[in-house]
Amino acid sequence: MTDFAKTRAFFDLPEGIIYLDGNSLGPLPSAVPVRLDHVMRLEWGEMVITGWNRAGWIDMPRRVGDRIARLIGAAPGTVVVGDTLSIKVYQALASALDLRPDRRKIVSDSGNFPTDLYMAEGLIRSLDRGHELSLSAPENLEAAIDEDTAALLVTEVDYRTGRRHDMARLIAKAHQKGALVIWDLAHSAGAFPVDVSGLGADFAVGCTYKYLNAGPGAPAFIYVAPELADRVTPALSGWMGHEAPFAFDLDYRAGHGIDRMRVGTPPILQIAALDAALDVWDEVDLADVRAQSVALSERFIAGVEAACPDLTLASPRDPARRGSQVAFRFEHGYAAMQAMIARGVIGDFRAPDIMRFGITPLYVGADEIDRAVGILAEIMATRAWDEPAYHRREAVT
Amino acid sequence: MTDFAKTRAFFDLPEGIIYLDGNSLGPLPSAVPVRLDHVMRLEWGEMVITGWNRAGWIDMPRRVGDRIARLIGAAPGTVVVGDTLSIKVYQALASALDLRPDRRKIVSDSGNFPTDLYMAEGLIRSLDRGHELSLSAPENLEAAIDEDTAALLVTEVDYRTGRRHDMARLIAKAHQKGALVIWDLAHSAGAFPVDVSGLGADFAVGCTYKYLNAGPGAPAFIYVAPELADRVTPALSGWMGHEAPFAFDLDYRAGHGIDRMRVGTPPILQIAALDAALDVWDEVDLADVRAQSVALSERFIAGVEAACPDLTLASPRDPARRGSQVAFRFEHGYAAMQAMIARGVIGDFRAPDIMRFGITPLYVGADEIDRAVGILAEIMATRAWDEPAYHRREAVT
Repeated sequence: MTDFAKTRAFFDLPEGIIYLDGNSLGPLPSAVPVRLDHVMRLEWGEMVITGWNRAGWIDMPRRVGDRIARLIGAAPGTVVVGDTLSIKVYQALASALDLRPDRRKIVSDSGNFPTDLYMAEGLIRSLDRGHELSLSAPENLEAAIDEDTAALLVTEVDYRTGRRHDMARLIAKAHQKGALVIWDLAHSAGAFPVDVSGLGADFAVGCTYKYLNAGPGAPAFIYVAPELADRVTPALSGWMGHEAPFAFDLDYRAGHGIDRMRVGTPPILQIAALDAALDVWDEVDLADVRAQSVALSERFIAGVEAACPDLTLASPRDPARRGSQVAFRFEHGYAAMQAMIARGVIGDFRAPDIMRFGITPLYVGADEIDRAVGILAEIMATRAWDEPAYHRREAVT
Repeated sequence: MTDFAKTRAFFDLPEGIIYLDGNSLGPLPSAVPVRLDHVMRLEWGEMVITGWNRAGWIDMPRRVGDRIARLIGAAPGTVVVGDTLSIKVYQALASALDLRPDRRKIVSDSGNFPTDLYMAEGLIRSLDRGHELSLSAPENLEAAIDEDTAALLVTEVDYRTGRRHDMARLIAKAHQKGALVIWDLAHSAGAFPVDVSGLGADFAVGCTYKYLNAGPGAPAFIYVAPELADRVTPALSGWMGHEAPFAFDLDYRAGHGIDRMRVGTPPILQIAALDAALDVWDEVDLADVRAQSVALSERFIAGVEAACPDLTLASPRDPARRGSQVAFRFEHGYAAMQAMIARGVIGDFRAPDIMRFGITPLYVGADEIDRAVGILAEIMATRAWDEPAYHRREAVT
């Protein structure tokens, strides 16, 4: 049984804050500054260039990848970390189109996070071979997969509403039609149990700054199914994906398996931060996290619905169809969220009217949920959101 | 006049070490751990998600890009940081091919760093439109540029020998033939004065972990000439390069100017490390750095040639044709370098027989150069390299 008092002690939470935005950026694990100080002063500072060997920097993308593999149901040696999620989407998609040269369709849905769609657009435009990005409403996604579909590009959990796709069904349908599946785990990894190999995903990608708490701009990860890993020819064929990077050959020869998804020199400080942030998972059962997330989400929804009649649930009511966030619609949602932040409850806002609340049992408990409901109820009752200062938009919303 | 005693004090050099490998990985600036501790504890830790606005994380790629712009002769607003050099090469090259749709040749030379060539190979293969990577010997590069050349992809300084291209000539020839120039500054930025806008480069890319001392896997940068910046359509069209990332539109609309070269969520910890590492340049005149680098290099060459007859200079003898490193060939160079490292002089080795020594006046002076020569002379005189332990190869050489 996961001890959530213990996991909570893993984090340095800001004093007096109720943090319901772990779906966007996880808080600081106290192990991270300690680890980075070590990496900077005792590895980079003392070993300098020899750190690549002596501190094992060169293998970190794979070693840390293995730690993530365990959280997403992947075998060791099938995940590497590096770059950003946008780049990893591009790699997976380029590989998928390459493996299905006679098909022209990339199927996705309007609930996907925009950068996935943008990267697909850019790839299609570069290739200039008549591919098409076919977007449907999330509920029609399964029906959109057909014999011309090269790849299904799907983010499991909608970044606005928290709506969760039925991945087993989608993958089965895609495979039945001969399409490959790219499963974006941005809002899944660390939020609930994931089984990429059990469900037979072809590619999976994700970021580590949300539920994996690795900090702003933390590296992404990519999984390639073992049976495909040696068959893909990387579009982004950087030296770290070469079979022998330090032979400095003039010609590219793809490395073995997942190693060929590495591109450039890995960002060691950010990967070390990720590595330290992952320590908490050694003590955690993701099934417990999921159960607790559902319990806290149900509590939050019930509380808000009882106290705030002007807010409408934007998330699916069935917890099985939600990720680990809860969203409400409110016309003045932006200002209401600013009012909450001013009162120490941090969630966030997505246009046009969605207030998002991340439910993260590792460091949020029933007490915080109840207090957050109370503060939101007071803001709504007193129309505290109707304060001009709360309507001024910031760069990042 | 640059005060090199002052710049040296900026770094935390390992005790008892003479560090001649700043051309591969610069040493730790003592400002970096202090800054990162601040970013982790007081920004990420205290502000969490609000750091994107309150700590200005969202603009860091451009703000830090402006600091690099000053070092490479670029105007403010023409450089952004992020990703890896491999990715930035890909972006520049894809843009160049896009701007020269009727041309089929990418011209480069065999002295280019392999990842530049690998990324070009991958792009050519993806596009599948009959492009060709035409590689010549470095001395024949200028002659290879012709009317079918879309892009000249050139790393100014050879990573093995330190041979420096005459960029003014190459750029003039490329432009005369209607080709675009991608100037890789990996071994140039921070090593000597660079003037990308004065010489009219179309694109410039570089890394920041060498002469800019920003740490292992520090982010790369990219410059796009202002007259081209609004005309390129990014191949890697990530959300951070969108005109309005936080509008979360379903369609990509490229941002203005250099912003469209941003891709995914920026690695804030690594960019903050870079920002802190750049502080030293506020007190430095790059012309002084160059003059001192030449003086120290000449001193090193003269010392080694006088004391070590078995070593052959692999770098050009004319300092004007060298970057800021000196290379010698020696059959047992790998072992000899291991012997040097065991005696506290850190340089590195590149197959098959090149011993590389980075000359970095910010933290290396005449005294270290003389001591390094003395240690190398002793190793050669006593055949200390003939020790089996020094012949065992490590992962990174």
